[in-house]
Amino acid sequence: MSAAVSSELYAQVQHFYARQMQALDNGRLEEHAGTFTEDGSFALTPGTEPAVGPQAILEELRAFMKQFEGNPTQLRHYFNQIVLDPREDGSLVSTVYALIVRTRPQEQPEIGVSIVLHDVIDTAGDRFRLRSRAVSYDQAA
Amino acid sequence: MSAAVSSELYAQVQHFYARQMQALDNGRLEEHAGTFTEDGSFALTPGTEPAVGPQAILEELRAFMKQFEGNPTQLRHYFNQIVLDPREDGSLVSTVYALIVRTRPQEQPEIGVSIVLHDVIDTAGDRFRLRSRAVSYDQAA
Amino acid sequence: MSAAVSSELYAQVQHFYARQMQALDNGRLEEHAGTFTEDGSFALTPGTEPAVGPQAILEELRAFMKQFEGNPTQLRHYFNQIVLDPREDGSLVSTVYALIVRTRPQEQPEIGVSIVLHDVIDTAGDRFRLRSRAVSYDQAA
Repeated sequence: MSAAVSSELYAQVQHFYARQMQALDNGRLEEHAGTFTEDGSFALTPGTEPAVGPQAILEELRAFMKQFEGNPTQLRHYFNQIVLDPREDGSLVSTVYALIVRTRPQEQPEIGVSIVLHDVIDTAGDRFRLRSRAVSYDQAA
Repeated sequence: MSAAVSSELYAQVQHFYARQMQALDNGRLEEHAGTFTEDGSFALTPGTEPAVGPQAILEELRAFMKQFEGNPTQLRHYFNQIVLDPREDGSLVSTVYALIVRTRPQEQPEIGVSIVLHDVIDTAGDRFRLRSRAVSYDQAA
Repeated sequence: MSAAVSSELYAQVQHFYARQMQALDNGRLEEHAGTFTEDGSFALTPGTEPAVGPQAILEELRAFMKQFEGNPTQLRHYFNQIVLDPREDGSLVSTVYALIVRTRPQEQPEIGVSIVLHDVIDTAGDRFRLRSRAVSYDQAA
């Protein structure tokens, strides 16, 4: 057990993720981008430069979403097995499984990708924010 | 973060859902129906009248399950990304992702549907109960 | 609600599982086997004798993993709907849904199996450990 991370914090992280990902999946991209710190980085695609800051992240998300224009697809991010490791500065290293489930109109859902998220969560301030998120893809293995 | 919802409550809601859905998936339909308040409503199918009260909900569930007669299918409800918003009266608005995973004998599991649950949870009394549950279907989008 | 299980404990169990299963899925089999007590039993296959103790469990896991030699496959265990029932001796009976998601290089993920885990968790000592784990398979129904 990670005695260093309280149950209190563990549930807060779950709730933070739930709001963050419902915002993304429901198309509230600004709200989602706003869950990163001002210098927060989001490395959506391995091997490319991460987007830094909410505005750049927002633009990256908008670019990413263009692939679904004319191809309506409901994405849902399913998170699981959240492991939290505290750092000395009070932030949390969070390692999380995620499935992206895609549903097209009148079709059965399918699992698009299986990924692992590598986050650093800033717990200072009045709400949690991501300092960084990097994504690794299982199918790239 | 939703400071208004404690970590205490968040974990209790998860546990409530776990018992409620294991009851349903294991065929304990009365126990499942008993997780609604006396005037609790369950809108299983968009565009139809919701069932109101444990007895009506039980009958609706029994009718729904008839489709699996002669076609044994194990359903499992996977919940994720639970967002809780407290209301002034102490109840909780809960918005939850759910996948219904179906497994037929000797077959690989498949995701039947991807849904979002819109619940109101009554936290008064000695146990949690649903005042209402409405289901929206991603593939209907 | 199971008033007998605190929210504190509920989150701790989630975190325990997250570490335990990330260890397994990332190939840290010794670390995974070490999450069982010295006399802990793991009944991976219904109808066969369970492996008892971390060393025997480790050997069973290694034998199980041999099927993936020459066939690289990333497994991810998704847990859900954790129900905890306390026993008089302070241990917890835990009943958990699990999907095993498999991803092969360059392929879409698929759900290999839908299972239910029947665990007894030892909460004494400095960290949680499993006294026993038995697996039931939905497709065997």
